[in-house]
Amino acid sequence: MSTCVVAQAGGPTAVINSTLYGVVDEAKRAGISKILGARGGIRGILKEDFVDLGRLDQNTLARIRRTPGAALGGCRYKLPSGPEGSRDFDRIAYVLAKHNVRYFFYVGGNDSMDTALKIHECCASRGLDVSVIGIPKTVDNDICHTDHCPGYGSAAKYIATCVREAGIHAASMYDDEKVVILETVGRNTGWLAASSALAKTREGSAPHLIYLPEVDFSEDRFLADVDRCISRLGGAFVVVAEGIKTKDGRLIGNADPELKDPFGHPQLGEAASYLCGLVRARLKVSARYAKLDICQQSAMHLASRTDWEEAAHVGRQAVSHAVAGGNCVMVSLRRPEGPDPKRDARARGEVRCGVGWVPLSLVANMERRMPDEWIDRSAAFVTPDFLSYLTPLVLGEVPALLESGLPVYADPL
Amino acid sequence: MSTCVVAQAGGPTAVINSTLYGVVDEAKRAGISKILGARGGIRGILKEDFVDLGRLDQNTLARIRRTPGAALGGCRYKLPSGPEGSRDFDRIAYVLAKHNVRYFFYVGGNDSMDTALKIHECCASRGLDVSVIGIPKTVDNDICHTDHCPGYGSAAKYIATCVREAGIHAASMYDDEKVVILETVGRNTGWLAASSALAKTREGSAPHLIYLPEVDFSEDRFLADVDRCISRLGGAFVVVAEGIKTKDGRLIGNADPELKDPFGHPQLGEAASYLCGLVRARLKVSARYAKLDICQQSAMHLASRTDWEEAAHVGRQAVSHAVAGGNCVMVSLRRPEGPDPKRDARARGEVRCGVGWVPLSLVANMERRMPDEWIDRSAAFVTPDFLSYLTPLVLGEVPALLESGLPVYADPL
Repeated sequence: MSTCVVAQAGGPTAVINSTLYGVVDEAKRAGISKILGARGGIRGILKEDFVDLGRLDQNTLARIRRTPGAALGGCRYKLPSGPEGSRDFDRIAYVLAKHNVRYFFYVGGNDSMDTALKIHECCASRGLDVSVIGIPKTVDNDICHTDHCPGYGSAAKYIATCVREAGIHAASMYDDEKVVILETVGRNTGWLAASSALAKTREGSAPHLIYLPEVDFSEDRFLADVDRCISRLGGAFVVVAEGIKTKDGRLIGNADPELKDPFGHPQLGEAASYLCGLVRARLKVSARYAKLDICQQSAMHLASRTDWEEAAHVGRQAVSHAVAGGNCVMVSLRRPEGPDPKRDARARGEVRCGVGWVPLSLVANMERRMPDEWIDRSAAFVTPDFLSYLTPLVLGEVPALLESGLPVYADPL
Repeated sequence: MSTCVVAQAGGPTAVINSTLYGVVDEAKRAGISKILGARGGIRGILKEDFVDLGRLDQNTLARIRRTPGAALGGCRYKLPSGPEGSRDFDRIAYVLAKHNVRYFFYVGGNDSMDTALKIHECCASRGLDVSVIGIPKTVDNDICHTDHCPGYGSAAKYIATCVREAGIHAASMYDDEKVVILETVGRNTGWLAASSALAKTREGSAPHLIYLPEVDFSEDRFLADVDRCISRLGGAFVVVAEGIKTKDGRLIGNADPELKDPFGHPQLGEAASYLCGLVRARLKVSARYAKLDICQQSAMHLASRTDWEEAAHVGRQAVSHAVAGGNCVMVSLRRPEGPDPKRDARARGEVRCGVGWVPLSLVANMERRMPDEWIDRSAAFVTPDFLSYLTPLVLGEVPALLESGLPVYADPL
């Protein structure tokens, strides 16, 4: 009799439940006799709050797979260090031992990989034989040592679609509304803001300017860029990452630097609002902004089929690897080199990437930023090589189940 | 030889080009020999900036019909009054006479119907025989004397879809992120904010609270509502209309009451940001916000088929009516009484509404607000009757043309 536990951590993506599906499906196939889901990430272990996922029928699982959010509940709980932390770890070890847990799968981002690593250490130091496997997910695409992260392709597809549509709309109103600023999430990295470049179809179409946290932000430079764009095209469509900051580290639009989340990350999300005010005040033209916020993390109706399939794939691979003896690693996506023999299959969203295994210690709390060679600093844009990297990730659609004109989704577990 | 001019005014909707398509297609059928499009609304007349729409082939027209934004360009230009205005009107009369224009179709909202009325008066007072027909469009749904406005159904479908998805996402994060506020456009009316109620699938699912400009906003009441919702459900998903104001007329989040557009409407769009700050400061819980802004006006990828078909229908009907002698009226949508004999056809997005004709003077500058009986004031929500009104408007899909995973659209004219 073997038992596995799976949990979802951090903020959800549109396809994090596809990973859950992959884990459960493969665990069944591998003959794992008990498949538990912990509700609310690591909190589910601490509270011994489990769902018996093995009992879910195929229809329910298929429906969950098409549902945004984290079906088990996500979490941003940081395991404390010191005496308090050791109480948490004692509790975790107790609960895992009590349920005879042999495999632990943690689906999350770089913060969550740190949690996974700590759970591995907690088990190892207590002599518990638990294989801990991390499974990447994040719309931010900022986990190291993987070609890309499940969740990113779908968010990129949503952002690029919205920017293409909003950009056409905006251009038809330039006589009266000069500047539109759209803000994406992404914390300290610009992968999502950069993805808006896919929207561009020709010289002059949106987006015109993209500001990434990887490049020091200068208000004067920004205003000059926007002004030049207005002179040339009649208006400007700007995309900014929420985490842009000046050379001396000041976050743009961050009114209260003291406001932090449990992992110590600052409160973001006022960059577009702030820059709109700046444009109005300094350039004396009208400006408006859009902020997609969690809509870009949950837009299942525009999920990329490639992303959705890959999300299930990494879940399955994590299970196979654990059963084969793997431990304390994260599954990573590896892009094959050279020309793509399966271009047509890929366009339908079939999985192309292979997988590899990275020690959790190499990904925990590490952050992968946009590489220099993909950023066109002079033009506040990205390079064609970046677009070649991104395009395969947004291919293919996941047809929605519709009722009365709206997509229908599963209830949480 | 007869000539017609069509122009698009105000902010675009996802389906304003479907109306353009309807006008052009019907004008061809009616034998109107010259079909001109004025670029940038009334500005196109003033500048004599025309596109020969009659020369566009069927493929191009079909592609334009699926494209968001205003293919001819929109405008927020208010015809001045006084001597300056009379110069504009002289110029308009001169240009219309020079091109032998017999029919003028103006696609727009309540401000634009005022412009249409003035053009009618300008022509009539100068003895020009030009039939002026207004064609409604607005995501705001705030034009009087029509059951609903083309553009509203598609924006409502997008908002309801995003709120359903983001609501599931948010609920899976309530342990760490308590409050999400999503802001819709809609100026002084709450039709769009109210449309988010379609997202709700069961007691407890999002949205939980909807604040409309039709109801005096109280910060204390709002905080109490949110607090109660957190106690009951663990978190709160709130939708606010950009134009909510207090009993004494103060716009929520409107930092600069002096900032106005050319029609004298105040700068809106900081309600969600402001309320997030309020929740953090007063309830001491985390809060984030989304602001869809022009994405909700341009989301062709989620257009309602019903809306898209109706938008073409009103365009066609305007042409037939003008040719039959109609003048100085706006086409309005009339919902048939009683049970719906074509329920199945309607579910596929076929046009069900009939049309009627309203004098421009009855719609110019008038604003239709949500009726009292559709607002549940005590619960900050809408009534089931409102949902019965709205549901038919979001039915049916318009399949996108896709290339490399993204929708492809026509270039502007």
